Amino acid sequence: MRYHKIPDETVRRLPLYLRGLQSLLEKGQNSISSKGLADFLGVNPWQIRKDFSYFGDFGTRGVGYKVEHLVKQIRKILKLGAVHKAALIGVGNLGLALLAYQGFKVYGFEVVAAFDVDSKKIGKKINNITIENVSNIKTLKKRKISLGIIAAPREAAQETAETLVKAGVKGILNFSPCYITVPGKIKVITIDIAMDLARLPYYMPSC
Amino acid sequence: MRYHKIPDETVRRLPLYLRGLQSLLEKGQNSISSKGLADFLGVNPWQIRKDFSYFGDFGTRGVGYKVEHLVKQIRKILKLGAVHKAALIGVGNLGLALLAYQGFKVYGFEVVAAFDVDSKKIGKKINNITIENVSNIKTLKKRKISLGIIAAPREAAQETAETLVKAGVKGILNFSPCYITVPGKIKVITIDIAMDLARLPYYMPSC
Repeated sequence: MRYHKIPDETVRRLPLYLRGLQSLLEKGQNSISSKGLADFLGVNPWQIRKDFSYFGDFGTRGVGYKVEHLVKQIRKILKLGAVHKAALIGVGNLGLALLAYQGFKVYGFEVVAAFDVDSKKIGKKINNITIENVSNIKTLKKRKISLGIIAAPREAAQETAETLVKAGVKGILNFSPCYITVPGKIKVITIDIAMDLARLPYYMPSC
Repeated sequence: MRYHKIPDETVRRLPLYLRGLQSLLEKGQNSISSKGLADFLGVNPWQIRKDFSYFGDFGTRGVGYKVEHLVKQIRKILKLGAVHKAALIGVGNLGLALLAYQGFKVYGFEVVAAFDVDSKKIGKKINNITIENVSNIKTLKKRKISLGIIAAPREAAQETAETLVKAGVKGILNFSPCYITVPGKIKVITIDIAMDLARLPYYMPSC
């Protein structure tokens, strides 16, 4: 099921809500008030209510939210039920960190392949994944790998993205600090940590 | 100068605008229409106008924006003029990737110190930075390092944050996939890549 006209900003916040709710569940808390949830997540109560309003009414006035129900609903909205296979391109320091990263599984992602151009790396096995030559990227469609994670150097990012699109991926997580241009139906999420770091000084007292 | 009542979401978008505008400047483009800028950045024109409206009027009707002026204004708003010294805690794969990352400089950040608990790493020199024992974190204030970058394992993140706060940092960039609790005046930005990856399936066709 795909919900229409949901603002990107809401879709951006849903995973944050989900992470918070999941940690409440782990603590054994099964219901929470609108205000309690807002405080826990560090956002405004009206923001949460507005975001949830796009999907119908999740809470009950005076009772609040059922945490487990909410987790299920958000996972459904985000289509996190399925397992998505992902391929990593670029096995430098960042790539190695991503291969070791445990956070993917929580959201139904599985990194099942890794590619590099460096002949010294090709053939090596890391976390049960054998690093392949980038020329093998063309096999992704056959292997039902629909997500690409780009951890290649900046200058190789655009070409890598185009290769991934040709290989049939539907989504790209881009760690190179640059714009990537792909056909509109392919969703690209660029993670540029400098973008986050650049927000910090604004909140800091003069130094 | 600190502007008040600016929504976090606007502050979140300003670095994205800045990055786009800087890349326009690099291409030699000195003015751009509101719509042109929106298309280039992949956001709605009304969003840009609304975000800029918090700071006064940047554009001229019928003429558009002067790119260089806009870059200067946004850098000023984000207080990016100064050089901020940052310390990295945790020199694993992710930490190594961060030490090599060139994107910090663009926003006036300089990673000048790195810390780890592993005696095999302490004393090693990476990109001109000698890895120090975490016990040295207490020297940050004296060294005028006001930002901490946590790339430590999840279970060490909270303790690391507390140590950083005691050492006088004003902002923390947290790469551990967990919540960190610190006094309200310290700004924490957590980068959990799974949060971004979790948004991808929503935009993808059923697979």
